[in-house]
Formats: sequence, C-alpha cells, structure tokens
Amino acid sequence: MSINVGIIGATGHTGEVLIELLLKHPSVKITHLYNSGGAGAQAISSVFPKFKKRIDLVCKKPDFAEIKKDCDLIFLALPHTVSMKFVPKLLSLGKKVIDLSADYRIKNPKVFEKFYKTGHSDKLNLRKSVYGLPELNRADIKSANLVANPGCYPTGAILGLAPLLAVNLADTDSIIIDAKSGVSGAGKKLEKEYLFSEIQDDFRAYKVNTHQHIPEINQALSKISGKKVEAIFVPHLLPIDRGILSTIYVKKAAGAKLKVKSIFELYRKFYKNEPFVRIKPEGQFPRIKDVVKTNFCDIGVKDFGSSIIIISVIDNLLKGASSQAVQNMNIIYKLPETAGLL
Amino acid sequence: MSINVGIIGATGHTGEVLIELLLKHPSVKITHLYNSGGAGAQAISSVFPKFKKRIDLVCKKPDFAEIKKDCDLIFLALPHTVSMKFVPKLLSLGKKVIDLSADYRIKNPKVFEKFYKTGHSDKLNLRKSVYGLPELNRADIKSANLVANPGCYPTGAILGLAPLLAVNLADTDSIIIDAKSGVSGAGKKLEKEYLFSEIQDDFRAYKVNTHQHIPEINQALSKISGKKVEAIFVPHLLPIDRGILSTIYVKKAAGAKLKVKSIFELYRKFYKNEPFVRIKPEGQFPRIKDVVKTNFCDIGVKDFGSSIIIISVIDNLLKGASSQAVQNMNIIYKLPETAGLL
Amino acid sequence: MSINVGIIGATGHTGEVLIELLLKHPSVKITHLYNSGGAGAQAISSVFPKFKKRIDLVCKKPDFAEIKKDCDLIFLALPHTVSMKFVPKLLSLGKKVIDLSADYRIKNPKVFEKFYKTGHSDKLNLRKSVYGLPELNRADIKSANLVANPGCYPTGAILGLAPLLAVNLADTDSIIIDAKSGVSGAGKKLEKEYLFSEIQDDFRAYKVNTHQHIPEINQALSKISGKKVEAIFVPHLLPIDRGILSTIYVKKAAGAKLKVKSIFELYRKFYKNEPFVRIKPEGQFPRIKDVVKTNFCDIGVKDFGSSIIIISVIDNLLKGASSQAVQNMNIIYKLPETAGLL
Amino acid sequence: MSINVGIIGATGHTGEVLIELLLKHPSVKITHLYNSGGAGAQAISSVFPKFKKRIDLVCKKPDFAEIKKDCDLIFLALPHTVSMKFVPKLLSLGKKVIDLSADYRIKNPKVFEKFYKTGHSDKLNLRKSVYGLPELNRADIKSANLVANPGCYPTGAILGLAPLLAVNLADTDSIIIDAKSGVSGAGKKLEKEYLFSEIQDDFRAYKVNTHQHIPEINQALSKISGKKVEAIFVPHLLPIDRGILSTIYVKKAAGAKLKVKSIFELYRKFYKNEPFVRIKPEGQFPRIKDVVKTNFCDIGVKDFGSSIIIISVIDNLLKGASSQAVQNMNIIYKLPETAGLL
Repeated sequence: MSINVGIIGATGHTGEVLIELLLKHPSVKITHLYNSGGAGAQAISSVFPKFKKRIDLVCKKPDFAEIKKDCDLIFLALPHTVSMKFVPKLLSLGKKVIDLSADYRIKNPKVFEKFYKTGHSDKLNLRKSVYGLPELNRADIKSANLVANPGCYPTGAILGLAPLLAVNLADTDSIIIDAKSGVSGAGKKLEKEYLFSEIQDDFRAYKVNTHQHIPEINQALSKISGKKVEAIFVPHLLPIDRGILSTIYVKKAAGAKLKVKSIFELYRKFYKNEPFVRIKPEGQFPRIKDVVKTNFCDIGVKDFGSSIIIISVIDNLLKGASSQAVQNMNIIYKLPETAGLL
Repeated sequence: MSINVGIIGATGHTGEVLIELLLKHPSVKITHLYNSGGAGAQAISSVFPKFKKRIDLVCKKPDFAEIKKDCDLIFLALPHTVSMKFVPKLLSLGKKVIDLSADYRIKNPKVFEKFYKTGHSDKLNLRKSVYGLPELNRADIKSANLVANPGCYPTGAILGLAPLLAVNLADTDSIIIDAKSGVSGAGKKLEKEYLFSEIQDDFRAYKVNTHQHIPEINQALSKISGKKVEAIFVPHLLPIDRGILSTIYVKKAAGAKLKVKSIFELYRKFYKNEPFVRIKPEGQFPRIKDVVKTNFCDIGVKDFGSSIIIISVIDNLLKGASSQAVQNMNIIYKLPETAGLL
Repeated sequence: MSINVGIIGATGHTGEVLIELLLKHPSVKITHLYNSGGAGAQAISSVFPKFKKRIDLVCKKPDFAEIKKDCDLIFLALPHTVSMKFVPKLLSLGKKVIDLSADYRIKNPKVFEKFYKTGHSDKLNLRKSVYGLPELNRADIKSANLVANPGCYPTGAILGLAPLLAVNLADTDSIIIDAKSGVSGAGKKLEKEYLFSEIQDDFRAYKVNTHQHIPEINQALSKISGKKVEAIFVPHLLPIDRGILSTIYVKKAAGAKLKVKSIFELYRKFYKNEPFVRIKPEGQFPRIKDVVKTNFCDIGVKDFGSSIIIISVIDNLLKGASSQAVQNMNIIYKLPETAGLL
Repeated sequence: MSINVGIIGATGHTGEVLIELLLKHPSVKITHLYNSGGAGAQAISSVFPKFKKRIDLVCKKPDFAEIKKDCDLIFLALPHTVSMKFVPKLLSLGKKVIDLSADYRIKNPKVFEKFYKTGHSDKLNLRKSVYGLPELNRADIKSANLVANPGCYPTGAILGLAPLLAVNLADTDSIIIDAKSGVSGAGKKLEKEYLFSEIQDDFRAYKVNTHQHIPEINQALSKISGKKVEAIFVPHLLPIDRGILSTIYVKKAAGAKLKVKSIFELYRKFYKNEPFVRIKPEGQFPRIKDVVKTNFCDIGVKDFGSSIIIISVIDNLLKGASSQAVQNMNIIYKLPETAGLL
C-alpha cells in the first residue's frame, strides 16, 4: 500500500522535518508540496539544498483540484491561525487531515482566542477534531478525519504526568512544570533574540507562566484526572537546536493510595506496551541526547516522600511535532505504528 | 595599600579565575602561588598559556615559612575536604583565610559528613568560620579570620529567596529550586560525562534532590526565616561553560501579609544598597548573559497570586566563587567593596 | 534478499552509527554485535540507551563459530592496528569484510608503520584490499572480499581534488588542504583536550602537516594523477560534533588546458551520475549543515585565474566512515547503491 | 592624569566592548556616549542591562558643542562609510580621533570605493590618517590626530606575516590566508544567516577570496615587503562568538637566506619587546581560547622545508577592534601601553 501525501507549509521547520521523515517511510509517496499561498513556486531543493538529489518536487501555492486528485492525506505544517483557513475545504474533499498547528487542539474557542489572539473561524470542525496523542487517544485517532497534532511542550508534560493523574495520586493544585527547550521550537523567526550571539552561551526563561501551551496542557491533564488542573508552567530557552526536557514537581494528594508497589512500577506498567515511551531504570533520569532525532519520549520518575519528581524528554520537532504526526498517520492507515519511525 | 596575597590551589578552575581577578585588582599583590602539595613546581604560565607576559610566578607546593613572611591573606581554591588540612596552620600563623571549598560552610559536622563522605577534622575553626555571603553577613565578614566562601548554587538560590523568607511570606514546606548550571561548575574533572560530545546539544538533570549543596541552602534559608526549611533542589547541566540560572517556585504562606505595595517592591528595597545585586524591572526576568564575567546577581520576581516565581542568575565561577571571594577580601580590608570587580 | 551482518567494535562511535544505519536498511539483518574482545558482554541498549525498544542484541566478544554460521558480512569498527588481528580469520571463513580502520588503506607497509607506529602483520591481505571510495573504485569494490573503507579527511579531500587531478590541471607541488573537523572524528577518547570546556568557544589546529591521514591522501591523489603528490595538510578541530569542511587551494599546472568550458563544468560532469556527490551551483560553496546526517559529499569550486579554490563537506561519521561502509556493502551485494542511505 | 573620552556609536558591538574596557581603565573618564545620530536618547544601561549599576550615561545623538567642551578623544565605533561624516568636524575641533571603521585604512580611494561601494568624501584626512597597528607603526601613532584602527582579519594576518615579509623570505605570489572567525565579527546584523539555528553545529566559508579586508591586508603586506603582494584570503564562520584563527601558508622565496638560526628565532626576536604578541614555544601552535577577552596576538610558526606554516590568533573584538583602539590611545597619551589592558 502506498499513501499519497501532500504537505501544506512545506518550507517551515516542521515541514522540512516531515519531508525528511516521509522520504524514508516505506508506505508513503509525497505527491505535492505547498506553501501557505503567499509565496511563488520554488523547487524544494533550492529552499533546502540538503534535498538535492533526494526529492524533485516544486513547492507552490495550494491547488485543491490537484489535492482532490492526488492526495489521500494532507499534513498542515502552518503557523497557528492559518490552518483553520484550509481545513474546512480539505475535509469537504474527503481528505484526511493532520494539522500540526494549534488551531484544533483547544476545545473551548474562548480559551483559544485568549491565548492565540484571534477568534476561531471553524468551530464546527474544532468540535470533531481528535487530539493526536496516541498514548492517550489511540482509539479515537484510528477513525479521525481531522487530527490536532499536539504541541511540543504539552507532549512532554502530559506524557510525564498521565500515569499519576490517571490514578489521582497528584495534588492537582501543586503541579509545576519547569521546561527547557531547544531553539528550533521557535521555528525560523527572524528576530534579534534568536541570533546566534543572543543564544549561544546564554540561558533564559520566557513567557513565564503565560505561554500559549498552558491551556493545552491543562485541558489534557484535566481530562485525564477528571478534575480541573491549573499547572504552573515556565518554559526556558536552551542553547541547543533540538529537544525538550521537562522537570515536573508534584505533591502527593492527601490520602493518596498506590495500588502497585511503587511509583516507578506505576509508570512502567502504564507505558509497557507503548512503542515510543521508555521508562528509565529506577533511580535514573533521561537526557535530551537519547531521544534527539527519534520519536521516543523517555521518562524518569522518583518518589521523595511527600513529593514526586518526574523528568521527560522528547525531540520537540519529532515526538513534539512531525514524527508524532507520522505516528498518527500510521494509526489512521492501520500501518505498523513504528513504520518509518525506527 | 597593597595586600599581599597567596593562593593555594592555583591550578584549578577557581584558582585560575582568582589569578585573573587579582591581577586586575588595584590594591593586591599576588606574592605566591601554590598547588595542593602533590604536584611538582610549574610556571603558572605554562599551566595556563594565557598568563604568559602577564604573571611570572611558579606554582609549587605550599611553604609555610614563606607564607608567614610574604602573605597577609590566603585564598584556598582546593577540592572539598582538602582545605581543612591547611586552615588550622594558616590561622595559627595569624593569616586571614578565605576558603572557596565547602569545608567550613556547614556548621553541623554530621551533616557535612553525610554529604561530603568524610568526617570533619577541624571542628574548632568550623565553629568560628563566617559564611561569606556579603548581602547577608557583611558585618561578621568584616572581622572574620576565616571566611567560608559560599557555593555557587547556594549563592543564587539564597539571594533569590532571602527577601521573601526574611519577612515570612513563603510557605517553607513548598520551596522548589530548579537550577541550571554551566559545565565549569564541575571543575576540570576528566570524566566521560564532561566530554564535549556528551555535553554539546544535550541537557540533563543530575543528583536530583540529592546534591551536596542542599544542606548549605537549607542552613542559610532556615537562619533567615527562623524556621526549618527543606527545599527541593534539582540541578541541571547546561551546554555552556559559565553561569547558573535558578528558577524558584514558592507558595505564599497562609495569612502572609506584605508591608510594602508589592513583592517587586519588597525585592527592590531589600537589595537597594547592594552594589552587586540588581532587581530586573517589574515583569522582567534575568538571563545568564547579563552576569557572565561579572560579580553581579540579577533577580526577577513575579507574583502569580498563590505562588511567586523568582529567577536569579550569577556567574558560577565569579559571584558563585572567585569574585565573591574578592568581594569578601575587600570587606575584610575595608576597601571599596567594588574594588577590582567593576 | 536479506544480508546477515555482524559488527565487531559495536560500542565505538562508528559502530554506534553503523547500527543506526543498518536498523533502517531494508535488506539487512544485524545478526551479532561484538566488542574487540577485552570487555564483558553487555546489552547494546545499556551501552546506548537510545537503542532501547529498537534492538535487543547483546554485545560480546567475537565468536568465530557463530560468525561462520550467522554472518555474510562483517563490519570492523575497530581502532587502527586492531582490525588486522581479525581480518585473516574472517576472510578464511569466506566472509566479506569491510574494515573501517586504517589497517588496509595504505599499500606500502613501511609508510603504514611510519604513521601508525606499528608494523603490519597481514601484508598478504593488505595487497588484495580494495580502497572503498565508490566514486573512484566502484568496479573493484563490486568483487572485493576486503574493503578498506576510507578515512574521513581523505574522503573529503580526494573527492574535492579528483576531477582536477584526473585531467592534470593541478600543479601537484602546490596543493594545500586546510581541513576543519567536528570532534566526533576523535572517537570517544577520554583526554583532557576533548572536555567540553576545552572545545566549546575554542578552535585550534592539531597535528599540523603531520597527521596520519596524509599518506592515505597522497596515495590516492598520486594514483589519480599518475604523479607523486605531496599535499600540505592541516587539520583543525571545530566546536561541533560532526562534519568536515576542507578548503583546498590549487595552483594551475603550467600550460594546463581545459577541454570543457570551465572548471565548474569539469566538476559537474565528473560527478554527474554519482548519487552521493553534489556540485554546488556556480559561484556557491557548501556548508557542513547540508550534509550532516547524510552520505553526501557537497563540493563548490571557483576559478581565480592562476589558482583554484575547492571546498568540500561531508559528515565525518557517515560519508567519512559508516554510511560509506554501507554504500560499499550495497555495491558488493548489487543492491541499489542508495539503499538505506536516502 | 585622566583622559576625557567620548564614544560615537556606543550601541554597537565594538562600542559595547569599548565601554567595558574604558570603565576599567585607570586613566580614563567616559564623558559622553553617542549613537550615530538617527536614534533617540536611551540610557546605555537599558540598551545593555549588564551595565546597570556600572555606568549611568545616556546615549544620544552627537553634540559637537558638548564634545568640544568635554572630550579630549573620540572613539568612532561606527559602520563603514559613516565615520567619514564625523571625522572632519572632530579634527577641526582639535580632538584626537580613533576610528574603528574601515574609512581611513585604505590609502587609495579608488580601492576603497571598489570594496566598500561608496566614494570617499574626506580624501584630505585619508592622506593624513595613521594605520593603528602598534607593532608596525608605533612611532607614527604617537603623534597621530587620526588613527585608522585596523580590521580584525588584517590584524591577525599582518602580525602573522610581518617577520617573514620584513626580511623577504616569502614568495609573495604564493601567500594563502585561511581565516576562521567567530560570529561577533559580523556585528549585530539581523539576517537569517546569523540565526542560532544557522550557525550552531555548522561551519562555512563566505566571501571566498572577495572579502573587503583583502585590500587592507595587501596594502600592509606590500608596505612591509616593499613589493606588491596579492594574498589569497578565504574567511570562514565559526560557531563561536569571539576569536579569529588564521592559518597562513607561505612558500619560501627562491634563494631566501635566513640571518638567524631558524624561522622560529626570527619570529621570537621580531616580537621580543612587544607587550601583546606572544610566540608559542617551538613546534607549538596557538588556540583561540588563549587570547579571547585579551589584547594578545599569539603566533605559532613551523618550517616545513619549502613551505612555512604560521598560525595566529586574536580576539576579533579586542586586538581586532576595541582593545587595540585602547592600546593606540595609550600610545598617543604616553601612558604605559598595557594600561587598562592586562
């Protein structure tokens, strides 16, 4: 079987990484590459010289007639608030859509508007979208037409907290997520703060407890725990290109009772059958290098009596974006979930 | 006035930085450089080629007769548990001593033994040592014969928390210090984990809530607040050479009352007259680059209702080690506190 | 078809990268992983945590009975002078061998001894080995039993110079190769000079015109040009993990006549059908980022009248080692040359 | 004695570094800071937060009445072609001027125009300017009113070649300078190519043998050797902030005769009394780390028979810009040449 795939937004960071992944995927044919509509046509190998002698396609403005004819699935690798301009049309053509932007992640349009500074123009499909975190939503993803691929910080934070919250072991008023991300998370913005001389040999926090990924994290954690969660979230910028490490601090809920012999066992069992989540041996914590360029999320957890410390790592452009999108595609098409990803 | 200074442990990281600082100090003459006793004599400019044409001294094993004659003050830039072999003799010669190791920081010898894996051999002087954090202990430092220069993590954490704890605004059971340090904090250990290929493009936590700086932090915070503090402390290793950023999470104490108009004002006033502590404008947080190669500690603080987030940054080898030692020397000798440091 | 492959030396840098490549190769099964004989058995996923949930093999000491039974081809990813201890036995078992060390590259055993400080113990097979640079020796590689996989610096330098030397356009007395390599080229040596704090923010030359890759470069260049070449070669150490950029300076030979319309055309035509060599558009030069994590060699060339400047880039661990080894395997087994490599 | 100093162009990279140096200089008072005229007034400590609690001045547009009254010397830390708009007026006020731009370095206005794409508007002062390389022009600098402070690449290249060219040992047709610079050399340009993600883990050449520093290098080398020199010059961009390493290849001139016992001795003697040039021990080469944050130029040289290889290193923002400007100031004012620089 070969899935015919198109990408809209092929010239951005996540688009570039998607192309790379799909070129190596045994069951995918990339049929078309599109930009978001504003720019002229350009050979993708002149945008990214590394694709010379690997892929010949031209990246041009989206052509729905062509998509109708040549694509089974469309990946949207677009900036936030741009995706929702394309989704209704693509779904009406009967295409499967995996959206890597934030547009269809947050179910409450008012919350979306508050954090993304624009109203939601496609509330109908927003209601139907499936949050594409396979470890939690695999069943729904299988039959989804529109997958809202998770954000990078939420992926690491939610996978790190899910086992605890699923059994109500955490005091949901005291969750702190101290996250550190590589610079590629910011995409390719030409802003002074992303110059080499501003990043190298430096480290800083940003959007301290005000980042737009907060509602996405809280929505997922609340759903898992069945209670309203309002975590504190502080992201920081690492002088590296790729990877997120999240250090998570949780107080145990009053009267919490564990049904397995330890917190470590809880985590090990929760993710036992997951192909892309690995729990570190007891007492060990993960590092970014072990997951960079992979779709894995590695997690370490340790019990300190009244508190629990969890550390999770992912590659922000892969499990935090493009390879998780491919994992979702594999699920939709009943392929082995690891196809093209190991 | 010129102070005659000797350094024991001149070939380590903090020794190297001390030499650099003292060469530029207008009131200091470096009279002798010593190693810890085991190695042979070596021109300091062959150990550090960057000192060629700048300083001619030979680094050799300590010679107490020479010290007696030629030194007013000795800096000990030695590994932990080595300093206490030298201190009694140096004090008996009537010398001032500033010890950059951990040996005289922790007042309870049992706690020292637990974290540093060796008994304390000089409890007499341990009792008399003054903890050399000028912002808190300036008066005692003035008349000290033995200054225990603070550790790097403790300096950033304590300065970040002192204003809150001094007025009992913090729930002392809920303090979390998530610290990120450059690699130079590890000295010059030849271990696999400090190879370029292990650090570059990576990030990891280490000694999660078990680091030997924990008792030093808790001792100081408990003294400030008048209550037993047991903070959670997780250090991480940044792929940079120098600098520590500490992100500190505090819950407000139940019933806490602020006497000034805001937490920001509290911090601004607390450090108003400090030459080396700078509070960021309201709503802003500091970055490592602003303090690297300086003796400054920059602090940002923001009130989030039930929680307060504080971020402090220092250069771990300077305010976290060698330049703080020089600041202490300036205080002892009644020099302007900023001499040689601005 | 599936090739059964064993690796001896699986725990080093090139071994690690080989495993990664072969796991993704559609026609390869890794049957056994071996160390060089000295260490105990260890799960490869505990040596490299990133291989957890990807490969289950244990790395143990070489077992020739097992190899005889289970392997078609052996990759030797061993330190120099260790490979030649294994090759005779492996060839006698009728196995194909691709040796990533320097042991079978230099045809003159005296030259080998001079640069590698040890006599050659397997001169018989040394005579029969094929130098595994596909762009120059494809025909011989097809039928080789023992491939001497080229060194990293030689690969970049030779591919950069071959078109010029093949038509005798270069003054062979004036070739200068100024090469800059990432640190991974040094393997995983635990030496002070490879510590993060010694590499980061630094840059230096080493083994100035005395590096052991010089005879390998000169041997290949002499063969291409039919004249004795003695290039000047200065390697430098970049503060990056992977990649080599070689800036090559050539004076035109007196009376040199070009049969195509430009030097640029000469290069374009020379490598026209090569799947892994890409010539930059006229007037442009390549950068390391375009080839990192790939098997490509990108080359830029510009004519400055009496002089020609050529710049080539490769990934030192891939085209300069492990992926070139896989390319050689593909050639031997008549697979598409790009199998598992694009 | 205290010199009253103003800086025009205080908000750029070299301006920032100049302020830092002058704050530590024992005989300087910074009286005014100016921008180039276009921007509004701004506290220098809000432009550079690291100057808070260190310097209080406001940076505003240049005010000649004020300069007349309050400044002995003006440093121009301006972009190329901007300095020459200020110089005539400043000299007419009787001020000493040290210009860090390229405007007064190249004596032939046609060459200047070719490389800097603009005609020279102040040919009168261009004729009188003194090239501020103390090691070659100390006598002229002493009495100069207008010093053209050298470029970064020329400083490293010229100091590396001067001893050879001064005694006519080099074949002046075969000089190759392969230079590698940190990114700060590009100033603070907001261009895509200087983003962290474009520099980190990468390395590339740029302006291959066409860089605007070429005529400055050739002018100086021609003057030293008394012959027209046309060196080949290829600059590269290192993934570090500061430092230049130049690897220089020279063929010996036919019939060259050395009057000292070795090339090494030639270099040692040539720079024997220079406070800021250090020759590495025979057989050794310098690294960038040894000179970063200093005014030193370290040089290594080795004789390979028909060729000589020289490697020089400097900090591009210090000996290659701001600290060399301070060295020139020290010479003009008869201060110890090392004042404020060691």
